[in-house]
Amino acid sequence: MFGVTILGNNSAIPAYNRHPTAQLVTLNNHAFLIDCGEGTQMQMMKYKVRHNKINHIFISHLHGDHYFGLMGILTSMGLMRREAPLHLFAPPLLHEIIQMQLKVADTTLPYELHFHPLTEEGIIVDHQNFSVTSFKTFHRIPCWGFIIREKKQPRKINRDQAVAFEIPVAYYDQLKNGADYETKEGVLIKNETVTTPNTAPLSYAYAADTLFDERLVEKVKNVSLLYHETTYLKDLEERAMARFHSTTIQAGEIAKKAGVGKLLIGHFSSKYEHLDEFLAETKSVFYNTDLAIEGVTYKV
Amino acid sequence: MFGVTILGNNSAIPAYNRHPTAQLVTLNNHAFLIDCGEGTQMQMMKYKVRHNKINHIFISHLHGDHYFGLMGILTSMGLMRREAPLHLFAPPLLHEIIQMQLKVADTTLPYELHFHPLTEEGIIVDHQNFSVTSFKTFHRIPCWGFIIREKKQPRKINRDQAVAFEIPVAYYDQLKNGADYETKEGVLIKNETVTTPNTAPLSYAYAADTLFDERLVEKVKNVSLLYHETTYLKDLEERAMARFHSTTIQAGEIAKKAGVGKLLIGHFSSKYEHLDEFLAETKSVFYNTDLAIEGVTYKV
Repeated sequence: MFGVTILGNNSAIPAYNRHPTAQLVTLNNHAFLIDCGEGTQMQMMKYKVRHNKINHIFISHLHGDHYFGLMGILTSMGLMRREAPLHLFAPPLLHEIIQMQLKVADTTLPYELHFHPLTEEGIIVDHQNFSVTSFKTFHRIPCWGFIIREKKQPRKINRDQAVAFEIPVAYYDQLKNGADYETKEGVLIKNETVTTPNTAPLSYAYAADTLFDERLVEKVKNVSLLYHETTYLKDLEERAMARFHSTTIQAGEIAKKAGVGKLLIGHFSSKYEHLDEFLAETKSVFYNTDLAIEGVTYKV
Repeated sequence: MFGVTILGNNSAIPAYNRHPTAQLVTLNNHAFLIDCGEGTQMQMMKYKVRHNKINHIFISHLHGDHYFGLMGILTSMGLMRREAPLHLFAPPLLHEIIQMQLKVADTTLPYELHFHPLTEEGIIVDHQNFSVTSFKTFHRIPCWGFIIREKKQPRKINRDQAVAFEIPVAYYDQLKNGADYETKEGVLIKNETVTTPNTAPLSYAYAADTLFDERLVEKVKNVSLLYHETTYLKDLEERAMARFHSTTIQAGEIAKKAGVGKLLIGHFSSKYEHLDEFLAETKSVFYNTDLAIEGVTYKV
């Protein structure tokens, strides 16, 4: 299971019961929180997301609608007696803001909080089952996107065949990694005879807040699912540019040029009550698009 | 109209759809925000409280459940193009936290934010119609309570009498302030003959977070309405003491000894789903008690 649950889909000012940005990405047993607008901990309760599964938090940039809920989660985790270490990836200046707020409250967290300052593009988490990469987006202040990628899965064994060739079970791990097998009689059994390829590794790119810039295309090339902001409808392209945000059409074009599998759009301006035009406009450029709706989980 | 609208009635961790502390006090045309836990701006939307009526914000102390919603409101006011100055009264260290968060976001507020550090007890706002007083409560870190008092109201004129004595309308303001009137014929009309006293000035005391300490009694003596926290039921008196909080019985005793008109209780621990025992226990000591329920306005 690899999915993205939307906890907040609105831009700066909350409106129409839409909340500021936060997403929970789940990959098998792992849970990642990406951005954390005000009220994220209440949204997590509402949608029955448990804190204690989260070991990594990624903050794209230091506009409040992307991080004002962070201190609340960090301290609630403490009050709930979390013990597991927590890894936080964020722009460097956030570290001091957190430390200062803990200090004035005379609070010591009961768990280790590892702060990883974002300073350059590249792999920031390298786990045996997944990796996380950071990339720069184009916003008014330094802003980071993130790609979470499954690692290449081992091949699947065709058990009937493997048994027929009397391949010892102890050798199965080597088969999964692509090795051929030589029988006692010296006959070579090619790997493809007894295994099939697993599904291709999936990937999710979160492109944070950004204006339209074709340099993004290379950064999110061929991901399975791309989240791209659409703060405005197409008629407000100038305003989008002036405020370092994107329109529906622009998000669709990035998705199309990058050849992504699917596009998810969000970060809707508070000026819009209804969202159907966002979907229609974006689909006119890139058909396989979904609106990011709070409480909904989208498969990667 | 003098009333208190509860925007959050829970202690540290949000639970059972109860939110961290925030209250809106309305006195005629004035609105005061007291404490501002995470999500206060969403609660204000839910209960249709308008930002732009608020010119004074009071923060009792720097535990997150009392101020993590502040940055969100300050920046949303900016995004909504507020121009009126805003007065913020809070422990001194909050100033730096705010400035740092504005700086990292490269944000300049379009209105004047006047930061008034709380350093000693006494009158902190003195307006012709009301005053606000700060007082120290007894908590783990420095913590302040606030009393909002109406100023003494002018007397009410008995118009029939005033006309019968042919008192000129131009003299009515002096009558309201208690002056006697001497007719052309030299007859003294005593003020009480043509006026009646107005209602006594009302007062609301917010005692923030505090453990049970009888020194509070003098500070909130005779207020019309006292808000006193009851984080725990009576059986957890030891825990209350250890965490610098109060029980139902303790809040009732402070109210009784201070001779307040009415008691409002809140800041309920997340361990309790139902609140009826809070009310029953407190009433056993001080009968005129109400639970602070979110979205409800209590008359002072």
